[in-house]
Amino acid sequence: MGRVTERRKVIRVRDGAVSTRPDTLVAEEPLEIRLNGKPLAITMRTPGDDFALAAGFLVSEGVLAEQGDLQNIVYCAGATVDGSNTYNVVDVRTAPGVRVPDITLERNVYTTSSCGLCGKASLDAVRTTARWPIADTPPLRVAPELLAELPDRLRASQRVFDRTGGLHAAALFTEDGELVDVREDVGRHNAVDKLVGRALQNGGLPLPRSVLLVSGRASFELAQKAVMAGIPVLAAVSAPSSLAVDLAAETGLTLVGFLRGSSMNVYAGEDRVALRAAAVRG
Amino acid sequence: MGRVTERRKVIRVRDGAVSTRPDTLVAEEPLEIRLNGKPLAITMRTPGDDFALAAGFLVSEGVLAEQGDLQNIVYCAGATVDGSNTYNVVDVRTAPGVRVPDITLERNVYTTSSCGLCGKASLDAVRTTARWPIADTPPLRVAPELLAELPDRLRASQRVFDRTGGLHAAALFTEDGELVDVREDVGRHNAVDKLVGRALQNGGLPLPRSVLLVSGRASFELAQKAVMAGIPVLAAVSAPSSLAVDLAAETGLTLVGFLRGSSMNVYAGEDRVALRAAAVRG
Repeated sequence: MGRVTERRKVIRVRDGAVSTRPDTLVAEEPLEIRLNGKPLAITMRTPGDDFALAAGFLVSEGVLAEQGDLQNIVYCAGATVDGSNTYNVVDVRTAPGVRVPDITLERNVYTTSSCGLCGKASLDAVRTTARWPIADTPPLRVAPELLAELPDRLRASQRVFDRTGGLHAAALFTEDGELVDVREDVGRHNAVDKLVGRALQNGGLPLPRSVLLVSGRASFELAQKAVMAGIPVLAAVSAPSSLAVDLAAETGLTLVGFLRGSSMNVYAGEDRVALRAAAVRG
Repeated sequence: MGRVTERRKVIRVRDGAVSTRPDTLVAEEPLEIRLNGKPLAITMRTPGDDFALAAGFLVSEGVLAEQGDLQNIVYCAGATVDGSNTYNVVDVRTAPGVRVPDITLERNVYTTSSCGLCGKASLDAVRTTARWPIADTPPLRVAPELLAELPDRLRASQRVFDRTGGLHAAALFTEDGELVDVREDVGRHNAVDKLVGRALQNGGLPLPRSVLLVSGRASFELAQKAVMAGIPVLAAVSAPSSLAVDLAAETGLTLVGFLRGSSMNVYAGEDRVALRAAAVRG
């Protein structure tokens, strides 16, 4: 895990004063994910948790849904000229009987593309591939005051960001606001994949009683990842996109954005946010 | 261009007070890019400037390098059930004689992947596909004071961000700090592709006397896009990754990060930043 950060020389300019010193940067390296030996995708990621990243990516793609779907994950070795292992290629083997859908090489290719491609087609594709409907029974109810505390709890556990300023983070909380896991990566989608993949490896999927918090914005892709893992609440520190909101509304995901201080916007699934109590208190 | 933003209902929580109102969100829709009729990639993007996005994407991939390489770009129509056009599929036709490399469906697949995949292989791939070496003769010299002004100039021209808070931006400046173009998108890589593609369409590539500024962080992918467009200076408001710095050092790109107020870090290509003058003034 020594590759999470790397040192490089940097020239600092501060109000006209120039100095040279070593700086800690977030490491970025390509990871190729193979499925049963066949190359599937390459993502630029921060090394570490690579097996979890691969597993979580395949949850998002609808290939894996529970621990039993996974046979094993290995680093590919021996294909370089000198026979060494770069630790940048992993092969995910599915358990016998797991149906591997015909997914293409590109992330977000949900359909056999025709000129009919549109946001609606993307929503339909997530709905049809999701193996975990969001099924929180009894329904989750989270107080806004609890949601408001989560960003601070996330920041308190972000180790690498403090040193590099260059990492996205994703954290999983219980419905009581207890931090379950936090992952950091140069790509926000990778941080979520690492969280979800780790849950799958531990037999913890789906995650019907949890809240997923992401630094930054909520894109369609992140909402998709929450839905595919059966997570009922996605909260983001910044803005969501239109398609993220549409996906949330269509699948029953609760989507909270602009979670800052005691303020937040609820874009979908407001039944899980205990708003009446908050209004009374306010 | 009416789809750059979309309206959705939002429930606002402010210090316990709850209100419902319409909100403006940044639009996100999938765009499929076809090359000579063959599906190549799908990106989640903010609609608008789609032809520029497709052209810029193909500059990054090493397919297009100048205006003459492009025959035309069209929206695909008529493939939906009702024959309508979703404006989410574009086909890029290259001019006769343009060599189309064997690129796969996935962004960042630069090589015929073997287990030797690593950051070095990614650097090599950019170096071998770049058709515009960074050739600024005489060498560009930019004062840190000028660089320090660019983020404010970018923000002043970001129209959609003010309304949604959900957009990344990329801007192209002359060596004198004059804003040439600015593009916004839900994906930072798309914003850069739109800038570069527009330059290609206008016969403006390469861009040897310009500075590219991006909101947020500088990843390998963004550094790659600068190199492929022959841009000598990439400045980012936040942190770069290790591989972005390595690519900059290897290709001669000047990489500035943490450009905030009068402070900045120079990670590579410091010859183009007039540091001595700044130190004297400081």
